[in-house]
Amino acid sequence: MKIALAQLNYCIGNFEQNTKKIIGAALKAKADGADLVVFSELSVCGYFPFDCLEFDDFIDNCQKALDEIAEKCFDIPVLVGAPLRNDIEGQKPLFNAAIFLYQNQRQVFKKKYIGDNPLFDERKYFEPSHDEEHLLDWAGHHIAVTLGDDLANHGIDPILMENKVDELKKLNPDMVIALAASAFDYTMPRYRSNVLRQTVLKHELPLIMVNQVGAQTHLIFDGESMAFASNGYIDTALPFFEEAVKIVNTDNLFINRASEDRLVIPEKMSLIHDALVIGVRDYFQKMGFKNAIIGLSGGLDSALVTYFAAKAIGSENVRVVLLPSQFSTDHSVSDAVALAEKLGVRYDTVAIKPIFDSFDTALKPYFEGRPFDVTEENLQARIRGVILMAFSNKFGNVLLNTSNKSEASVGYGTLYGDMCGGLSVIGDVYKSEAYELSRYINRNEEIIPWHTIEKAPSAELRPGQKDSDSLPDYSLLDQILYQYIECSKSAEEIIAQGFERAVVERTIKMVNRNEFKRHQVAPILRVSPRAFGSERLIPIVAKFS
Amino acid sequence: MKIALAQLNYCIGNFEQNTKKIIGAALKAKADGADLVVFSELSVCGYFPFDCLEFDDFIDNCQKALDEIAEKCFDIPVLVGAPLRNDIEGQKPLFNAAIFLYQNQRQVFKKKYIGDNPLFDERKYFEPSHDEEHLLDWAGHHIAVTLGDDLANHGIDPILMENKVDELKKLNPDMVIALAASAFDYTMPRYRSNVLRQTVLKHELPLIMVNQVGAQTHLIFDGESMAFASNGYIDTALPFFEEAVKIVNTDNLFINRASEDRLVIPEKMSLIHDALVIGVRDYFQKMGFKNAIIGLSGGLDSALVTYFAAKAIGSENVRVVLLPSQFSTDHSVSDAVALAEKLGVRYDTVAIKPIFDSFDTALKPYFEGRPFDVTEENLQARIRGVILMAFSNKFGNVLLNTSNKSEASVGYGTLYGDMCGGLSVIGDVYKSEAYELSRYINRNEEIIPWHTIEKAPSAELRPGQKDSDSLPDYSLLDQILYQYIECSKSAEEIIAQGFERAVVERTIKMVNRNEFKRHQVAPILRVSPRAFGSERLIPIVAKFS
Repeated sequence: MKIALAQLNYCIGNFEQNTKKIIGAALKAKADGADLVVFSELSVCGYFPFDCLEFDDFIDNCQKALDEIAEKCFDIPVLVGAPLRNDIEGQKPLFNAAIFLYQNQRQVFKKKYIGDNPLFDERKYFEPSHDEEHLLDWAGHHIAVTLGDDLANHGIDPILMENKVDELKKLNPDMVIALAASAFDYTMPRYRSNVLRQTVLKHELPLIMVNQVGAQTHLIFDGESMAFASNGYIDTALPFFEEAVKIVNTDNLFINRASEDRLVIPEKMSLIHDALVIGVRDYFQKMGFKNAIIGLSGGLDSALVTYFAAKAIGSENVRVVLLPSQFSTDHSVSDAVALAEKLGVRYDTVAIKPIFDSFDTALKPYFEGRPFDVTEENLQARIRGVILMAFSNKFGNVLLNTSNKSEASVGYGTLYGDMCGGLSVIGDVYKSEAYELSRYINRNEEIIPWHTIEKAPSAELRPGQKDSDSLPDYSLLDQILYQYIECSKSAEEIIAQGFERAVVERTIKMVNRNEFKRHQVAPILRVSPRAFGSERLIPIVAKFS
Repeated sequence: MKIALAQLNYCIGNFEQNTKKIIGAALKAKADGADLVVFSELSVCGYFPFDCLEFDDFIDNCQKALDEIAEKCFDIPVLVGAPLRNDIEGQKPLFNAAIFLYQNQRQVFKKKYIGDNPLFDERKYFEPSHDEEHLLDWAGHHIAVTLGDDLANHGIDPILMENKVDELKKLNPDMVIALAASAFDYTMPRYRSNVLRQTVLKHELPLIMVNQVGAQTHLIFDGESMAFASNGYIDTALPFFEEAVKIVNTDNLFINRASEDRLVIPEKMSLIHDALVIGVRDYFQKMGFKNAIIGLSGGLDSALVTYFAAKAIGSENVRVVLLPSQFSTDHSVSDAVALAEKLGVRYDTVAIKPIFDSFDTALKPYFEGRPFDVTEENLQARIRGVILMAFSNKFGNVLLNTSNKSEASVGYGTLYGDMCGGLSVIGDVYKSEAYELSRYINRNEEIIPWHTIEKAPSAELRPGQKDSDSLPDYSLLDQILYQYIECSKSAEEIIAQGFERAVVERTIKMVNRNEFKRHQVAPILRVSPRAFGSERLIPIVAKFS
């Protein structure tokens, strides 16, 4: 049998476009000889629609999409994902299902394990399947069909895989097809392929997994759909971060070849780079936005964001504004200009001193006699935010936020100032990773000026200011932050790893007291196993030890 | 037996203070003759701590708090709530438990139904109890002990209650004690007492429920702890929105009196009023903040927020700034001054025209020839935001946000402008409700100037502007918003209720396209069954029909 793996990029709620893509891929695959075309989880509506699932018309539209696919692909067997209504009172109103469509046949496979992944909150909407398990019998094969977390390990022993296939195994399937929607982080490609391989090895069954690709606001899906042979080797792997349809001949999945995996996982910086490009591109494309605007300071963060914007939507659609103050250094301006010229983006310069002076005059009656402090520092950052938002409003350019994860962690940023923007591009990238990323970008030629990368980082909000005046060195800070944020280690545990007590306690204090700032930040493109946002919930009002 | 219901206001993670409160209440209750003192769910750490539960030291501190309570209340039988570790690999790391402490006894009752309330996300942390059910045998009574959602209705039939008491009933308990942490909304007092009463009536068992009181960031807990007699009547009800410890003689709970309920539920505006006062007060008190600042426009929303701030933290701690532009009307200034004087809060005036002009000059080279539009409107709002934040930074006053729910719904507010602030006080109050609330506040004397309430609402960002130029009348708008937001009704369903198609479609479009703004807003004090925030998750990037 020839199975087409259709790894597509859906837009949530764009039924017209999603349906068209599904039908187009099915027709093409059929023409190329496919006997079955498999799409990803909730493919008709895009994954994950959150509370859109509560609206009757949204579910009606899913139903209509299924009907249209059934009609237009009448002679093409397809497996698509869609929410289906559950009419039983007292249960969740929907099932998360895979639907096999062929001629007048419809066979439904419901997801059994409704996970508690904090990224998605499926349990709010979906009832787990209470059906007796059944197979898809097609083209002489007996296929176990699963959805998403059906294939996660639900056993107590982390080594011994236990999941829905254990139950389906009793029905004697000869292969597994998994419709998935598995979000990217830089650890996920290796983790995901290992988890799937363990199921394959346990049952000695070929396994085909189809994932979606593309960004859904802050969540990025990397694709990486795969076909495993029954001996655990990856026979076919679809590309990362790209739409693709590929046909697998299932005969190859039963041959016990000791071949090399076809899946080659790129290195971390390459993955993060490609994820951020698709993250920015899809935000603009799916929102129907064309142009971006960025405040370019001459520092590393805004340089990176400008690079990603230019890469994602084209330099002709990116505009930057240089907003020097009396504290800006000459090299900031020259580094910013060098980058803008290298990337070919339009740049303009608006000096903020006269505006700062007008605030100063207005506030003098109240602030008289008080020293220059964080107020005046923030004032500069906020004037910049207001100017950038004025450009955004006047010309319809979306302002991109330039905060990195180290800053976001310790609150080294001005709310309503440099924290403005509709999308945070590198808010899940620690400063140390931002350096690595810029070296990766410069691996063949100087794109980000080397001077930008090598100079000491500074917010330039007062004379001679350096980040290191108020923060530990980023190389040290980021290690502590990683332990605290990604690993949820307590201060004592981090200190026990050999970090200096005073630095650890100061760092953790900064993280906790700045929760209120992170609450008001734009969605952050997620590339790490724990981004700020819905998957890290810390109360704002609390006492931290 | 005499049972003390201890309804206290905890601060999340403030173990020292929480422990002191618990011990103090226990000692006092013992002195007053109590045989058992009952506290609310997770009382040692405050409800709900979210990801603080992931930190080892947080759980250690809960354990230490239990030990201290056990020691200091050695001769006082208490039932307190705390998270307990679960060491079984592959399960959630904690149980949500009630712990009976007396002398050297410790008896543990674990929560069985770990709910999926989107306000709390308990399933992320807590394993449901797999223990065999058992009772607390104390002072001749056999007590079924439950936690939170153990008492929700888990049956399919919405009328016939089905919950943990059904299982506990087999052990022949003679009463039920429920440790709870049930968040407020204006429908909840009636709903909660009805749900509890159904359990009482089904099993003919007295029931005591102890809830916490006070605000945890955006979530407000109203208290309303109760003791039901076995015939369903409420024998004892603790006050709303106040700490209280009250002793119930259980003898009274077995007498079949057809008396009136002791629980009197105040009307909606009274509930919302008191909830917002405690919401603001606890935000300041628990964060250790003293002073608030508010931009006072002369309109209704900022007047209400100023009123609540003065009521919650004292008018001597509230400062307002009037920020008139060239478009502000005389009555705006006079209404604002009248309110400030009535409330006795300090007010200052900073005219924004000179600052607006300095932006205008700086932007002229780029904006030349383009008409005055939303850019210049937003610019005024953002200048105000910057000035208020400068006051906030210079003097340490927390800026309070003044957006109402109607505005927040349709995006009638400026991001980084009037949407600034650390806490949204009336962001869960529709404009129509804001009118009702102001009339409630004025029920005995004019506090909010009647002119503020009666004039046509206007943002005053261009000459002669009225809200009704760009929005449907609030009385109509709010009805549609309620159907869409609180009830998740689709456009067609709302139109079928008799609303005009064009208005419904336009309203829904405004709601959907402004999701990005709500993503960046401060925490909103929750008073309705569905506030913006974690309980309404709509993707920003999506196509809406």
